[in-house]
Amino acid sequence: MNSAAVVDLSNSPHAVVRPVAPGWVEISEGFWAERILAMRGHGLARQFEQCEVTGRLRNFERAAGRLTGEFEGRYYNDSDVYKWLEAASYALARAPSAELQSCVDRVIDLIRSAQRPDGYINTYFSGSRASWRYRNLTDEHELYCMGHLIQAGVAHRRSTGSDRLFEVVVRAADHICETFGPEGRPEPDGHPEIELAMVELARETGDSVYLRQAVFFLDQRGADPPNLSGLHYHQDHAPVREQPNADGHSVRLTYLAAAMADAAMDTGEAELLEASIRLWESAYERRAYVTGGLGSRYQGEAFGADYELPNDRAYAETCAAVGGIFWNARLLAATGDARYADWSETALYNGALVGVSPDGAAYFYANPLATDPQPTPDDQQGLHSSGAQQTVGGHQRQPWYDTACCPPNIARLLLSLPGYAYGVSAGALWVHHFLPGRVEAALPDGDSMTLQVTTRYPWDGNVDLVVEEAPDRPVELRLRVPSWAEGASVEANGVRETVEAGAYAVLRRVWPAGTSVHLRLPMDVRLVASHPRVQANRGRVAIARGPLVYCIESADHPEANVDALVLGPDSDLQPSDEPGLLGGLTTIRGSAGVAVKSESDELYSRFQGGRPALTGSTALTAIPYFAWANRAPGAMRVWIPYVDG
Amino acid sequence: MNSAAVVDLSNSPHAVVRPVAPGWVEISEGFWAERILAMRGHGLARQFEQCEVTGRLRNFERAAGRLTGEFEGRYYNDSDVYKWLEAASYALARAPSAELQSCVDRVIDLIRSAQRPDGYINTYFSGSRASWRYRNLTDEHELYCMGHLIQAGVAHRRSTGSDRLFEVVVRAADHICETFGPEGRPEPDGHPEIELAMVELARETGDSVYLRQAVFFLDQRGADPPNLSGLHYHQDHAPVREQPNADGHSVRLTYLAAAMADAAMDTGEAELLEASIRLWESAYERRAYVTGGLGSRYQGEAFGADYELPNDRAYAETCAAVGGIFWNARLLAATGDARYADWSETALYNGALVGVSPDGAAYFYANPLATDPQPTPDDQQGLHSSGAQQTVGGHQRQPWYDTACCPPNIARLLLSLPGYAYGVSAGALWVHHFLPGRVEAALPDGDSMTLQVTTRYPWDGNVDLVVEEAPDRPVELRLRVPSWAEGASVEANGVRETVEAGAYAVLRRVWPAGTSVHLRLPMDVRLVASHPRVQANRGRVAIARGPLVYCIESADHPEANVDALVLGPDSDLQPSDEPGLLGGLTTIRGSAGVAVKSESDELYSRFQGGRPALTGSTALTAIPYFAWANRAPGAMRVWIPYVDG
Repeated sequence: MNSAAVVDLSNSPHAVVRPVAPGWVEISEGFWAERILAMRGHGLARQFEQCEVTGRLRNFERAAGRLTGEFEGRYYNDSDVYKWLEAASYALARAPSAELQSCVDRVIDLIRSAQRPDGYINTYFSGSRASWRYRNLTDEHELYCMGHLIQAGVAHRRSTGSDRLFEVVVRAADHICETFGPEGRPEPDGHPEIELAMVELARETGDSVYLRQAVFFLDQRGADPPNLSGLHYHQDHAPVREQPNADGHSVRLTYLAAAMADAAMDTGEAELLEASIRLWESAYERRAYVTGGLGSRYQGEAFGADYELPNDRAYAETCAAVGGIFWNARLLAATGDARYADWSETALYNGALVGVSPDGAAYFYANPLATDPQPTPDDQQGLHSSGAQQTVGGHQRQPWYDTACCPPNIARLLLSLPGYAYGVSAGALWVHHFLPGRVEAALPDGDSMTLQVTTRYPWDGNVDLVVEEAPDRPVELRLRVPSWAEGASVEANGVRETVEAGAYAVLRRVWPAGTSVHLRLPMDVRLVASHPRVQANRGRVAIARGPLVYCIESADHPEANVDALVLGPDSDLQPSDEPGLLGGLTTIRGSAGVAVKSESDELYSRFQGGRPALTGSTALTAIPYFAWANRAPGAMRVWIPYVDG
Repeated sequence: MNSAAVVDLSNSPHAVVRPVAPGWVEISEGFWAERILAMRGHGLARQFEQCEVTGRLRNFERAAGRLTGEFEGRYYNDSDVYKWLEAASYALARAPSAELQSCVDRVIDLIRSAQRPDGYINTYFSGSRASWRYRNLTDEHELYCMGHLIQAGVAHRRSTGSDRLFEVVVRAADHICETFGPEGRPEPDGHPEIELAMVELARETGDSVYLRQAVFFLDQRGADPPNLSGLHYHQDHAPVREQPNADGHSVRLTYLAAAMADAAMDTGEAELLEASIRLWESAYERRAYVTGGLGSRYQGEAFGADYELPNDRAYAETCAAVGGIFWNARLLAATGDARYADWSETALYNGALVGVSPDGAAYFYANPLATDPQPTPDDQQGLHSSGAQQTVGGHQRQPWYDTACCPPNIARLLLSLPGYAYGVSAGALWVHHFLPGRVEAALPDGDSMTLQVTTRYPWDGNVDLVVEEAPDRPVELRLRVPSWAEGASVEANGVRETVEAGAYAVLRRVWPAGTSVHLRLPMDVRLVASHPRVQANRGRVAIARGPLVYCIESADHPEANVDALVLGPDSDLQPSDEPGLLGGLTTIRGSAGVAVKSESDELYSRFQGGRPALTGSTALTAIPYFAWANRAPGAMRVWIPYVDG
């Protein structure tokens, strides 16, 4: 069953570009192959261990009556197990592993035993707490957890052909449909997720009752009086079709808006799709980090105001970048608009990838764009809180978190990544992402087309494609040209032509086997500026090359304070391949001015003139943002002051 | 009883400068007289109305058994009534008012009736919740509320001579001393306040048991295992004598550190004083806003890291500025160091005063240093939260808040302000603040000295003092020279000499009646720069004149976007007296460059060069920060970009 789709749009009437299932995509080597391999082996194994030692699996044993004692951890911990299972299922689809298979089987057995006879399942609301079921949909994440169970079950069935988990899923879904609805309880879940799950379950079963249930949940938000809290935090402040801006909890918003686009592809409701696009424009045109990170505020893990994008206090949860990729993928499928593939790529290579170490086993939850080594406390506040101590600054990767949503989220993204690379529409094969390997795409009209792709992307902008098989009639090859790739060109049959950046280059012709296409993306080092209303970045630039955003880290500047480094017209930034660094990177090297340390150490003093005084210059090395914090703890900056000559 | 001291250090053996009680200080006219008058009349009356309509007074009636029904509002609402009562007591000490007296008497009667027979009092933990008493000292503010009761009772006795409230206070305090202590319960309160109250009660009664109780509470924090949560939020992360930095909830920290200095003046414990000073250096040398505001984060209402001082997301709660003034006043008394008077003045004229409108009846809770008119949601988060919707941006003054700590806090500060202006030490009279009027100071050695002060401060830097009465032996007149007043001079007996800024100018001589002293503080318009590590203010300056920090507000720039205004060498900023504006102000006028609106509206784009392009110039008007948001809602900026010619 290696044709397992992540999002299966093959029967969605209103999809424009249907993803090619990952089973038809081979990633042979290079950037993502290494990362997928690390996650498939070491990463998944360490995550499973964490689920064991933190009691997440014991909670299932208790709910199954096989173990006594109290539930351990947070009431939403089941979801981490389900997300791990989804990721593990994708891994098994790509490469058999007896060890991983036995872990998966054991978890599925536990889940089967823990499910209540009526289909409900949640290990926290079991035993003496069984009567608390659904007492507080606003906060207690029961449908969120079952949503992740459903996604895992669909992934497991598509990956392995087995129904052992899927049977549980259908029982749980039917229980939910019986309990919530026009004749039942009115609440959605405070944390969106069940909506995405129900849409995909409808696709897997062909039963539209689950699609209707998803739309029901979508439309239960923002009621008057509210079904939940009425708060932005719970995405309950306004009906989803009317929300003007991406507000409230950023992960919840991405899941919600992704589900709106997803459902619209099956129901054809233009209003739902338009509302998702309106939210996207708010999120990505005014409220996103240059890394594709989302969520400007620790408070409420929320979006900020337009252009409110602090660097040191960026929350930019890994899950929000991942959720943003889910969302962009669905809008891309629903519209074919390259802007969604652009932001998907930005988030993939930066805001999401930064959340995991090269070995797949150390993670970030919040992702600042500037940090200093000295940590400062950032407790959770509030009445009756069981608040944990957090810190800001001194960011270091962790093997796990009490709230461990991010590690399995990045795992399921990485292990399903081949499913995001290609798409098909009538008579067309779309290349969204540039991965070395092979794709064997079934076109909607029954033909198939096979491409071989060779590239060192993202380190190099040459993408060489060879057609291995194609129909003997004209077919469109649609190659995405990223928005940063001004001056890109495509050469086919010896003819080179410049193509527009931020769009798909459309090559329509008959493709004899062996035809080569050469996409050339300019990989000059770019300086990026922010909209002037982004106060945190005034007078600063970010270094970028290709899809990668760079940063400076103190590990590369042992003699200098990274906060004193200043770019200027003479910085002469050049790429430098460094195969031995952090698994192999292209760094960017040049020179930086060094701001004179002010004589006074006063917090406020009389202004002495506008231009920062510089004292000589020093060598500057920038590394990709995703690679930071894998050496000694230290300071890091994405946005660097720029001073004209 | 017009000699009522706010902080009575007359018998504190380790005080260095003892405040002159407000009863001996007359403020005849001008800046503060107008504001005190507004608060004494309209402000207190509106606050009383709010206590009525929001059920704060009905809660006392219920606890007294005179009314049925459920407690209304938040569990800490009693404290607002107590703080109002403290403020009203100060008001009555200065000017009799039958109307205010009758409100005060009614509230005291309610309090007397609501107190339990054993001395405990809290209207939330009454009736069916009586058994919940002290179930959760970490979060539930019972000692915090009783602390405010004690402060109110001491203020009321000192102001009116009446014991009717003070009897309640002593019973409550004795109950607390019996319940908590080495042989009793170990917890302090999650919100410091009881410590300040107990120290002052010890002074009022002469009974050192209350002082010991204060020190006990101070030292119960940061225990291992913790008595509370162990969190910074509750100031429970480390023993107070060892805390290295001002961390956690900013209001709590100011109250706690003020109490540490306060207790040290009575116990002589140098360690407590040094620890308070260490925290002060962390707070004011690395973590304070230029306005004297404290608290960089909405999350946890907390201090940020060193130099983490965002403008749009400044929390800077009015109560933290007020608490900072309490703290600075105590450190000034304990040391005589002018730096505490400096920051006290900064907070008074800016970070605290901004919290109240000119008529005394509209308030701010959070005080950003930059805001835009479009509000964005900022819900409270969290499990089982009854979270209210908040917004950021679109800041407007409110007549009251659900959590209404700030309005009565600014009231009690304003109405006790004369008590902060002067101090005495052996053979010396200290002038901390410049208020037109008169002071009749009892020197510690039995002599007295009377001064008449004439000044238009803060609009004008001329402070003229005439000695009306003085001992016939040499006495020091110590005049504070603010740290911004470089080039200040003092003229006495026809001799003018330059005096050092940021210190007390010491004039020691025999003062025949009628001797004049002229302090001349330069009131040039200053541009202020931040330490380069304050990322939010890079490339920006603040406008200041005298003790006032200025801001630009869209109300004065109807044609321009305040975000586009840029200062430079040609801005020619000049003060301009405007008696008709917002009750009479000196604005600062000049010209600003206008940054060209970038052609692209993209969030991120290719950097086009370092210098912001300017299109012509426009008239700029800056108003004092404290005066903003009293006209139409709009944008505001304290920190303004500065571009060299």
